[in-house]
Amino acid sequence: MNIQSYITGAWFDGQSDGVPVVNAVNGDFIGTVSSAGMDFRDVLRHAREVGGPALRTLTFHERALRIKALAQYLLERKEEFYEVSAWTGATRTDSWIDIEGGIGTLFSYSSLVRREFPNETFLAEGEQERLSTEGTFTGRHILVPKEGVAVHINAFNFPCWGMLEKIAPSLCAGMPVVVKPATVSSYLTEKMARAIIASGLLPQGAFQLICGSTGDLFEHLMEQDVVTFTGSAGTGGKLKSHRSIVANSIPFNMEADSLNLSLLGETVTPDAVEFDLFIKEVVREMTVKAGQKCTAIRRAIVPADRVEAVTAALQQRLQRLPVGDPALDGVKMGPLVGRDQVDDVWENVSRLQRSCDILYGGDKEFAIQGSDRDKGAFFPPTLLYCHAPQTATEPHDIEAFGPVCTVMPYRDLDEALLLAKKGRGSLVGSIFTGDDAEARHIVLNTAAWHGRLLVINRDCAGESTGHGSPLPALVHGGPGRAGGGEELGGARAIKHYMQRTAVQGSPTTLMRLTGEYHQGAAPLTDPVHPFRKYFEQLQVGETYHSYRRTVTEADIVNFGCLTGDHFYAHFDELGARDSIFGKRVAHGYFLISAAAGMFVDPAPGPVLANYGLENLRFIEPVSSGDTIRVKLVVKQKVKKDKRPDDTRATGVVRWAVEIFNQHDKTVALYDIMTLVQRQHD
Amino acid sequence: MNIQSYITGAWFDGQSDGVPVVNAVNGDFIGTVSSAGMDFRDVLRHAREVGGPALRTLTFHERALRIKALAQYLLERKEEFYEVSAWTGATRTDSWIDIEGGIGTLFSYSSLVRREFPNETFLAEGEQERLSTEGTFTGRHILVPKEGVAVHINAFNFPCWGMLEKIAPSLCAGMPVVVKPATVSSYLTEKMARAIIASGLLPQGAFQLICGSTGDLFEHLMEQDVVTFTGSAGTGGKLKSHRSIVANSIPFNMEADSLNLSLLGETVTPDAVEFDLFIKEVVREMTVKAGQKCTAIRRAIVPADRVEAVTAALQQRLQRLPVGDPALDGVKMGPLVGRDQVDDVWENVSRLQRSCDILYGGDKEFAIQGSDRDKGAFFPPTLLYCHAPQTATEPHDIEAFGPVCTVMPYRDLDEALLLAKKGRGSLVGSIFTGDDAEARHIVLNTAAWHGRLLVINRDCAGESTGHGSPLPALVHGGPGRAGGGEELGGARAIKHYMQRTAVQGSPTTLMRLTGEYHQGAAPLTDPVHPFRKYFEQLQVGETYHSYRRTVTEADIVNFGCLTGDHFYAHFDELGARDSIFGKRVAHGYFLISAAAGMFVDPAPGPVLANYGLENLRFIEPVSSGDTIRVKLVVKQKVKKDKRPDDTRATGVVRWAVEIFNQHDKTVALYDIMTLVQRQHD
Repeated sequence: MNIQSYITGAWFDGQSDGVPVVNAVNGDFIGTVSSAGMDFRDVLRHAREVGGPALRTLTFHERALRIKALAQYLLERKEEFYEVSAWTGATRTDSWIDIEGGIGTLFSYSSLVRREFPNETFLAEGEQERLSTEGTFTGRHILVPKEGVAVHINAFNFPCWGMLEKIAPSLCAGMPVVVKPATVSSYLTEKMARAIIASGLLPQGAFQLICGSTGDLFEHLMEQDVVTFTGSAGTGGKLKSHRSIVANSIPFNMEADSLNLSLLGETVTPDAVEFDLFIKEVVREMTVKAGQKCTAIRRAIVPADRVEAVTAALQQRLQRLPVGDPALDGVKMGPLVGRDQVDDVWENVSRLQRSCDILYGGDKEFAIQGSDRDKGAFFPPTLLYCHAPQTATEPHDIEAFGPVCTVMPYRDLDEALLLAKKGRGSLVGSIFTGDDAEARHIVLNTAAWHGRLLVINRDCAGESTGHGSPLPALVHGGPGRAGGGEELGGARAIKHYMQRTAVQGSPTTLMRLTGEYHQGAAPLTDPVHPFRKYFEQLQVGETYHSYRRTVTEADIVNFGCLTGDHFYAHFDELGARDSIFGKRVAHGYFLISAAAGMFVDPAPGPVLANYGLENLRFIEPVSSGDTIRVKLVVKQKVKKDKRPDDTRATGVVRWAVEIFNQHDKTVALYDIMTLVQRQHD
Repeated sequence: MNIQSYITGAWFDGQSDGVPVVNAVNGDFIGTVSSAGMDFRDVLRHAREVGGPALRTLTFHERALRIKALAQYLLERKEEFYEVSAWTGATRTDSWIDIEGGIGTLFSYSSLVRREFPNETFLAEGEQERLSTEGTFTGRHILVPKEGVAVHINAFNFPCWGMLEKIAPSLCAGMPVVVKPATVSSYLTEKMARAIIASGLLPQGAFQLICGSTGDLFEHLMEQDVVTFTGSAGTGGKLKSHRSIVANSIPFNMEADSLNLSLLGETVTPDAVEFDLFIKEVVREMTVKAGQKCTAIRRAIVPADRVEAVTAALQQRLQRLPVGDPALDGVKMGPLVGRDQVDDVWENVSRLQRSCDILYGGDKEFAIQGSDRDKGAFFPPTLLYCHAPQTATEPHDIEAFGPVCTVMPYRDLDEALLLAKKGRGSLVGSIFTGDDAEARHIVLNTAAWHGRLLVINRDCAGESTGHGSPLPALVHGGPGRAGGGEELGGARAIKHYMQRTAVQGSPTTLMRLTGEYHQGAAPLTDPVHPFRKYFEQLQVGETYHSYRRTVTEADIVNFGCLTGDHFYAHFDELGARDSIFGKRVAHGYFLISAAAGMFVDPAPGPVLANYGLENLRFIEPVSSGDTIRVKLVVKQKVKKDKRPDDTRATGVVRWAVEIFNQHDKTVALYDIMTLVQRQHD
């Protein structure tokens, strides 16, 4: 059987024999992988000319809804993927991370986009920038999708998650993708890709898959493309300095394996809960995915006088851990993904032995359940000890990408911090301590070297997602050795596939460009009160000027008595005289309440509710005798997707509110958010 | 005279003859530049071991105040810099951009940091991320300064601004800098660097200067360093793919010259104001700094039927433009920075002539005032015309870095958009049109290819800062040919020198780490009312629980009558029944006003004013008969710098407010900002 690619709208067979791939558990032949004969330039052209334009016509919300539908589609078929995933040596738990964790990332990005992004084809970011005295020339940043293709080069360890966590932000951004899985486990990626294509949910050209070599693909990359890479630092470095990448300033996001550490706090005694939590986490990280995770704990750094207790506890736990065919009940760790990986890990373990001793495992003759050691790609959990980690280089530099971890001692926290930095940049570090002061010291002094740090104590351990789990909301990637990239982390990842452009012009031009009101824009007025208008009828920039109201002593007294707010600045003439106001002033809450009284139109109408208020600043105090008025401007409109159980179709209208006094000075500035009914579903 | 370097705390003379540099106007010898004999590894070590730790002990505000003091110090000495700047061929206007524009960037960053950053040594970014169902495990991003050195490699055209706009964000971030100016104008950078050192305002090791070659500096770069580069794409590409940069994943920010365009809208007739504005801007961009700006207009794209009118108007203006010694009254354009540059521009003009005709200039025999053509580095303003820009490659690819611009025709907007993209990525583009719909179409379809776009019309032209001016608040940099980097753009530039790290743990741990309250953190209670405490006495996490209050019909009626807010959801039983609430409800403004009544302590005390409110969300409606209570938590404290005219030292305290109903359901959530007096100055 050939593992196929999907390019330019069709499944593609490599035109040569290809690389054979086999079942990691029993060595059974699965198929061959080849991209020979592929026209890579045409693959990129198809993405750029067909997929990109199609995606860019969709709004963020439309893209997000397709991603959600795709996630549902894949989830319904998950057992098909579990079946194939088992061939990679994954236990059910391992597969869950890869398959359901990956699908979960699609759901997360779909929600995030509908919550945080406008229902538009592009994004206006941040605030209007004041660039001139009179305000006739102003600035704003916008982000538009890059007009090229996102090429994703993935590692072998997460054939599903690796693909999905990268395509989710790319597609949400509006960029078509070309996915290139690692050959050894490409059959699982291909399996899921078949479902993605069969779903028909993505536009033509938005998704392509290359199983096999990338040939001369890089030669044809252009300045609007983006490349992401997960894998070894060596390969990543080569690709990153490729002539095409450099000459075209192509963003290259790299996520490389690193020598991640877990640190047992100096304050943690062997009888503490955190000690136990540490032992469990180290063993879990050694054995989940048979240690084939970029984020796995490779260095366990412990107080010198607790080395014995730690290693004894680790060995005890490892002894209770059955290795074998993951299909068997009770088996906790399966094989590596392939026999090449086994050779590779053995070699690295032997290099580590230059400065480390083997405490557990490390023996080629080890017990496995339900499979044949000579057919499957098994490797024994192996624990090393480095007695002089300050001078040894190997445990900080050599990554054995399997169930291998090195314990190393530290004498005091300063030494622990130095050891942490010897990893020269990691994806993640964890700190086990019940002492928050200790945690703070360690976090602030090692954060520069880590993309993620987690502090585990008894309070959070129960709900912790663990050392090794990247999460959609948090940045994934690390400095230095870890590649210097940032994946995930919420909206940040989407923006990675977009061009940020500063736009300057008149506020009116920027309003018409972004669809958001910009201060100083030409006002639109209409005799019809804005509360009498449906969502569709309201125009951004539409301005309502209220009548005036003189604030009186009676207002202040009545408001204070009604609300119970007798703060001295409102009620105590003597106190108020010495206050920063110099005299008694009206309650700020009275001003915004009276403002509502002046702009609200009372009868039932399309404006259903005021559900929020933002960025309120009281600028000038108002006293008895001052006369206020309000200006209300439609600032932004976001159409809401109507859900099956919604009785009315609605949208969110954000209004800029400004209260003035009789000198036309601004008294208060804020935004209110209202829910407004739509005329049409 | 030797142009010196400043390294490891002392001025340094190169130990060989060095490169001679001369006055651009008259060829007079200025000095020689050499870094021979410098121990570059030691320069980096000094920054990392002396400058970095010193900067990192300062808070953001302390760093910002030093930057402000430095800006004031330099501004007082500006005439010294103008004097030397004249040697580079700069007119007074050109020098103003370089010197005062640069100093202005220091002021801008100082203000921005004190406005937007905490008074802390590191930054907590964005919101708390919910990571678990019960909320015992949560996440947050923090940014800490990178622990290496920021190496800034600058171009010759802005010897002051180029240095200052890069050191401002680096130093604010907490990273020491090594500045490497271009040799040909390094004497001006050295002049200003002398003032920076003499000011004594920066910590030892925070600022070093290398005049001359960088030798083997790059060999010694490490994973915590950052490199920024401004200059040609060719040199930039070479440095970016340097082994050290790639192997250590060193962030490399590149800002390269690009073929920036200015586009005259299809709707703009020759008699329109915008036509005139376009002509003026093209000439200005050709001649300011004698066209030696990365952002200068190189391609003027105009409707085919207006080519004649445009070129005639441009020629007319160019004829009125005196070139010569900038010291002379009336001279509008000086020489290039050096004679090598003159040769270089002539060569590029001759390459451009393969597909372009010279309309104006381009003749080596041209009039100059007050100087000798054979001694100064003069170049005549030169206007080219490309009649077939769809097929020609030269005008989109060859940059003559001098007073040179090519006019090219377009038949319709689609063609104009294609021409825009032929620049393959630019720092900036400008669009001249009075039609906002046209502007929107052009901006959205060319934004992916530009770092900045400005739309000029009659409304904003008067206050416009112009096509060529990067501004501190806006991103500077562009995709593709322009290097793919981002400088400036407010806080973004500071974060470029910091590591973003996701931190996970219990909310209490994160609160103690960041000094900000995180939802779910263990509450601190104290019998003393928080309004009775000075800034220093308030602790983050400190929680006040109010008494209860039953909301009554009388409250709703009184509140509506007092504020004038008779919205049907509060007053119209029939309307309210059909509303999304299903019955009459209390005003949202009443709830937050009554909440204040419940948490305010009336007597004069350290809490001086409530000046703002943020992120208010009404979550559950409250009706007559419901009983509410309030929880007030100290969320964040920011110490304010006491200014000379402040009568009291204060700080900003942000409080998290939550209103509950009798079922302990959250009714409303928001933050309030108060000004609180400090006990100590």
